[in-house]
Amino acid sequence: MPPFRHLMPVRFADVDHAGIVYYPRFFHYFHTAFEEFFRERLGSRSYVALLDEERIGFPAVSAHCDYKAPLRFGDTMAIDMSLERMGERSITFRYRVYRYPEREPGRAPGPGSAATDAPAEAGTAAEVLAAEGTTTCAVVDLEVFRPTPIPAHLRQLFTALT
Amino acid sequence: MPPFRHLMPVRFADVDHAGIVYYPRFFHYFHTAFEEFFRERLGSRSYVALLDEERIGFPAVSAHCDYKAPLRFGDTMAIDMSLERMGERSITFRYRVYRYPEREPGRAPGPGSAATDAPAEAGTAAEVLAAEGTTTCAVVDLEVFRPTPIPAHLRQLFTALT
Amino acid sequence: MPPFRHLMPVRFADVDHAGIVYYPRFFHYFHTAFEEFFRERLGSRSYVALLDEERIGFPAVSAHCDYKAPLRFGDTMAIDMSLERMGERSITFRYRVYRYPEREPGRAPGPGSAATDAPAEAGTAAEVLAAEGTTTCAVVDLEVFRPTPIPAHLRQLFTALT
Amino acid sequence: MPPFRHLMPVRFADVDHAGIVYYPRFFHYFHTAFEEFFRERLGSRSYVALLDEERIGFPAVSAHCDYKAPLRFGDTMAIDMSLERMGERSITFRYRVYRYPEREPGRAPGPGSAATDAPAEAGTAAEVLAAEGTTTCAVVDLEVFRPTPIPAHLRQLFTALT
Repeated sequence: MPPFRHLMPVRFADVDHAGIVYYPRFFHYFHTAFEEFFRERLGSRSYVALLDEERIGFPAVSAHCDYKAPLRFGDTMAIDMSLERMGERSITFRYRVYRYPEREPGRAPGPGSAATDAPAEAGTAAEVLAAEGTTTCAVVDLEVFRPTPIPAHLRQLFTALT
Repeated sequence: MPPFRHLMPVRFADVDHAGIVYYPRFFHYFHTAFEEFFRERLGSRSYVALLDEERIGFPAVSAHCDYKAPLRFGDTMAIDMSLERMGERSITFRYRVYRYPEREPGRAPGPGSAATDAPAEAGTAAEVLAAEGTTTCAVVDLEVFRPTPIPAHLRQLFTALT
Repeated sequence: MPPFRHLMPVRFADVDHAGIVYYPRFFHYFHTAFEEFFRERLGSRSYVALLDEERIGFPAVSAHCDYKAPLRFGDTMAIDMSLERMGERSITFRYRVYRYPEREPGRAPGPGSAATDAPAEAGTAAEVLAAEGTTTCAVVDLEVFRPTPIPAHLRQLFTALT
Repeated sequence: MPPFRHLMPVRFADVDHAGIVYYPRFFHYFHTAFEEFFRERLGSRSYVALLDEERIGFPAVSAHCDYKAPLRFGDTMAIDMSLERMGERSITFRYRVYRYPEREPGRAPGPGSAATDAPAEAGTAAEVLAAEGTTTCAVVDLEVFRPTPIPAHLRQLFTALT
């Protein structure tokens, strides 16, 4: 199965004084794809319901990123999210951020547009890998902030990312 | 002509310790709509080309926001951008941020989706005004950081927002 | 009584693609001074105790900023916070952000340093006003998110800012 | 030689909807310590001069963080920065972020205060390790965005962090 893909532009203020995307920002991009994955698969309130009603959370245990090519304002990125490993009480996701080919006016890509547009294949010649990383999250019961087994419906959801 | 509308979700980290969207964040939402307006009308590289090639910029002269209702994580917002006043060397935009009705899975709204989805009418019963504000920008020649007359093609672009 | 003053540097990522501080960021600077005011006067946990134990919060009702001169990375700023108006259930603060004269190594100013250094007088020739604004906050009971009279100890605290 | 230490509070908006510091934020904390290291050792304009005049930059090649304990609003942190490895054209820094014991009013720690206060020893019982990570940066000539040998004065500066 292909990874989940989310398209979005580099924002005007995502850059630093050197004129390239501030490197901590890529971890925010990773998390944005994670949020969009929930929105697209389960609806716009699914992730907040998981946190506030089921009281399940995903605090980061570790995060890693290798930077391959800078992104700048004006660039559009494609973020690919895939499942790297699913343990009993922790999950590792892999993210790849590509500089995405320019689009014409009226065809500007963005969150939610992946379903309606036909995005380029991941890794095609036109795309340049900007960054690749992983995040490992614990699955915790937010009432006690302790690891808890991954609920079956989430296990099923994430398996679709393999 | 209706205002330009951009839909996007409140992000996981847009909130503060009180659990509502951090109030400075609304000015970032305003600017995001401004960026998306350029992307949709003139293409994904139009704004950066204006800055880097035409050397025209829009530094803020003043900004104002009235807060009407809090937004929280899980909310989707619609940002409406309209032209309030266009002077010789400055422009005032008005922004209204609405809490937007929930969508089903697979129909998650987002940047760029306004063109393909049929968004609810601005101000319908289902929408709640969260914030309303204005920003006034100078139009400057970035080479000398001095006010300059608004170029004709921008004047035309912004007139479409009236 | 003089305003409360907080010194801090412009951060590497506070700027936007135009190379100046992203204008929404100034509202974050305002709030940072507000947080530091509590820290300096009542201790590092005073504001969180107010929110979490007394359940008093200060959601913004309106915010305004006039931009006078850009700030850039490398600049140090002085933020002056004063009380503009204290009503029954709302408060208006005024903030002025100055570009602050450069210091020598080993004398880098920052939060908390105001007490030990002798800062330049507000508004001396060496300081340049970069931005000035106000924020009006409601005082709310966070249990019900409704306006509540300003508690006496806060009324006293803020009066010291007149 | 001890690591460089920078003290600062968790900000009101550093947290996410789960009420703990948003994990990408720690990489921003790392970079803030890096900026403060330059400010304290070489003055408030030293880093911007390096970038804009010497045209030397430090784009991230990789970044890693292990999360040990959450930080929350109200916490003060101590960030320890040390040199992990200095190659010909790249440098690896190690950062440790500790939850720092509370202070009394009027003694609020912050950037720049390390020199005047007597901070607790790193790793004393009262401090809790919240996160530990490394960042590897290339040293590049910003004119051509290509790796360049580390200038002698920087080599000397960073060696003091061993």
